[in-house]
Amino acid sequence: MRYALGVEYDGSDYKGWQNLGEAGPSVQASLEKALSSVADSPVRVVCAGRTDAGVHGQCQVVHFDTDAVRDPRGWTLGTTARLPRSIAVRWCTPVADDFHARFSARARRYRYRLLNRSIRPALQRQTLSWERRPLDAGLMHQAGQALLGENDFSAFRSIQCEALHARRQMQSVSVLRNEEVIEVSVQANAFLHHMVRNIVGSLILVGSGERPVEWIGELLAGQDRTVAGPTAPPQGLVFLGPLYPDNWQLPAEVTL
Amino acid sequence: MRYALGVEYDGSDYKGWQNLGEAGPSVQASLEKALSSVADSPVRVVCAGRTDAGVHGQCQVVHFDTDAVRDPRGWTLGTTARLPRSIAVRWCTPVADDFHARFSARARRYRYRLLNRSIRPALQRQTLSWERRPLDAGLMHQAGQALLGENDFSAFRSIQCEALHARRQMQSVSVLRNEEVIEVSVQANAFLHHMVRNIVGSLILVGSGERPVEWIGELLAGQDRTVAGPTAPPQGLVFLGPLYPDNWQLPAEVTL
Repeated sequence: MRYALGVEYDGSDYKGWQNLGEAGPSVQASLEKALSSVADSPVRVVCAGRTDAGVHGQCQVVHFDTDAVRDPRGWTLGTTARLPRSIAVRWCTPVADDFHARFSARARRYRYRLLNRSIRPALQRQTLSWERRPLDAGLMHQAGQALLGENDFSAFRSIQCEALHARRQMQSVSVLRNEEVIEVSVQANAFLHHMVRNIVGSLILVGSGERPVEWIGELLAGQDRTVAGPTAPPQGLVFLGPLYPDNWQLPAEVTL
Repeated sequence: MRYALGVEYDGSDYKGWQNLGEAGPSVQASLEKALSSVADSPVRVVCAGRTDAGVHGQCQVVHFDTDAVRDPRGWTLGTTARLPRSIAVRWCTPVADDFHARFSARARRYRYRLLNRSIRPALQRQTLSWERRPLDAGLMHQAGQALLGENDFSAFRSIQCEALHARRQMQSVSVLRNEEVIEVSVQANAFLHHMVRNIVGSLILVGSGERPVEWIGELLAGQDRTVAGPTAPPQGLVFLGPLYPDNWQLPAEVTL
């Protein structure tokens, strides 16, 4: 039997999603341990999108196969009860055998939030990054529109990225200010390693006036990572979740 | 010279605002230590409203007296640099000698946020409490309006409260739902010990349908703490800050 799970996590205390063994705690290892305990047999999960150290998940989706018979509520509550407080299972649903958390996803959404003021954040510092230079969110939004459509995103790709090619379909980019918080929301069919944080790092240079609005389009066309902005820090980034076609009958929050 | 400071803090790791010596870490003790280091002489602060263990501050206001000469930017940045990451000084401004952080305040604002879903919060668990029973925010809002005006709030007062009397002027109560989060915002001239958390605990019983809308007004009239709802947990509560008359020329966020 194959199940899909929606998983929420605070990535602050993890070396990232992926289980790297001795390298440190991972969300995947914690989740597999809790699921294996509920199943009373080893469970391995496949996720929609791996996140880096310090990056959070609002609705990561995984699938797993098991012979253990539990109802969806049993998986959800039983697994959450065995997880650290920084991870929770939002829902569980049985899926067809050909559903794949990664390959069935048609889009992924991320949100990056940064506090734009002279003093560092204290109250929500786990989920906000910080930029002291005053930023113009309108300029950042305008600049980000150059990324829309199918493009080669080599300019925003980490050198450690293992993807076969850098072509991705960017579906939406929005930058909004809400008082002292600037929120960057992006949706694409898929993302390269560090792609969102590298885009945000370059948009910050536009927002601060150090680079013109046109610069983002020029970076994209140049396909040269070395001339783009720095990688923005991880704590402001949340993987909101993947989106699947409605034939899979998953919860609304992950359905296109 | 007297100064006023705006202070933001995450109360998760503190035994509350007040310095209780050996009882555990307090926001006040951390702040006084950092200010004393910047002043190079002992500094004591007086706050607008003490908060309990686990309760947060968005813009707590304190005043302090010192002979040390530093410009406001020096106090703000120097003190923040010496504080733990869970506390930051938002601003500093010189004030008249008769300004008093507590007695000059005409109003205080608090916000309580709770996640209303079947599964506990993982991602923002430091600043959200949790209620699994489905709550009707509209009923909670309606019920809360019975608290408006000058009333005796004995029904919502902790037995440890040291105030001389229980009369307070409630200026606004609002309950809103934003997806899975219910937000209770209150403003009064001043609050009794545990008053916001006790009000929220009773509003939850109305929202869940266990008590009728009229019950809140009946509790208020009855002045009997023992028949009201339980005290809601601290982590959902943020002291947004006090409000002062504009003659003190404080920043807009703390000016009436």
